[in-house]
Amino acid sequence: MRFTILATFAALLTYCWFLLKVGQARRKFGVEAPKTTGNADFERIFRVQQNTVEQLVLFLPSLWIFGFYVSDILAGLLGLGWTAARALYAAEYYADAKTRGPGAALTFLIGIVLLVGGTIGALIKGP
Amino acid sequence: MRFTILATFAALLTYCWFLLKVGQARRKFGVEAPKTTGNADFERIFRVQQNTVEQLVLFLPSLWIFGFYVSDILAGLLGLGWTAARALYAAEYYADAKTRGPGAALTFLIGIVLLVGGTIGALIKGP
Amino acid sequence: MRFTILATFAALLTYCWFLLKVGQARRKFGVEAPKTTGNADFERIFRVQQNTVEQLVLFLPSLWIFGFYVSDILAGLLGLGWTAARALYAAEYYADAKTRGPGAALTFLIGIVLLVGGTIGALIKGP
Repeated sequence: MRFTILATFAALLTYCWFLLKVGQARRKFGVEAPKTTGNADFERIFRVQQNTVEQLVLFLPSLWIFGFYVSDILAGLLGLGWTAARALYAAEYYADAKTRGPGAALTFLIGIVLLVGGTIGALIKGP
Repeated sequence: MRFTILATFAALLTYCWFLLKVGQARRKFGVEAPKTTGNADFERIFRVQQNTVEQLVLFLPSLWIFGFYVSDILAGLLGLGWTAARALYAAEYYADAKTRGPGAALTFLIGIVLLVGGTIGALIKGP
Repeated sequence: MRFTILATFAALLTYCWFLLKVGQARRKFGVEAPKTTGNADFERIFRVQQNTVEQLVLFLPSLWIFGFYVSDILAGLLGLGWTAARALYAAEYYADAKTRGPGAALTFLIGIVLLVGGTIGALIKGP
């Protein structure tokens, strides 16, 4: 499961980066906890992290089912593609919320491919 | 783990549906990112998805521990029950936030049963 | 994986407690769904639960990789430390949002240690 683990590591490390950006943005834009709204610059940075949580709950289980039942190396490649799509999404969203489409769509698409592919693989191969 | 995987697939596919509904509702009700508030119709659709993330982080690990250490087929049945409860919750919440109780309670209850049952099973059987 | 499972159980049970606190706070402070803002007392209780979701998506996969490839018992100990840090965070945040730093930092640090340690362990030992 070496490549699945590397893809998990890349995805979660990128997610840690998004988490740290939110803490930094709280100070920079003066948005004090528990508030999460009131400043559009903060809100974009916050939504990148939140949306990544929303995608991780789809991605991680699907990645591992795919890596275990279909192919570890292919899971690793798709997983690294997911992280690249997330980095694209963050760069787009940080710049302008309107441009976040491609990164968002690619992340979601890879999640679906892993989920459907992994499930089919498990039903064919698995006990 | 065939039934555990099928239950995972059903839960995550339903979740993808909730995700797509949020994107659609952004356009329909004119709630532009990064905003997530300001229109009660959008907010109900958004909260269904958000609350499903909140329940998935309890459900998925518990389902897999239960499926591995207690019973794959019983995990599959409880897991499909979880997805049915989520669909009920969404239908209730989309119609009127006040009526979401039964679907919410049933989802949570199944999550707890899987967590407690899976942990007990693992401590008895597992190495 | 006995200790990894016990740590998972402790973390998720604590999370269930945070979830129940949100439901109770909705009634106590009159914040009706789908709203999640408008009352600072409610918002602190809500953010404790939300932030725990944000940390669980990092913690749980990292814990299991660490428990499987490095050490089950050490994963269990670090995992129980994570839950203790979360309980500290909740106590701090419920009292005053400004004092939540130590619990937040400790939770995040343990997540990172499990992620990095588990990945290194998997690359050295794993197939």
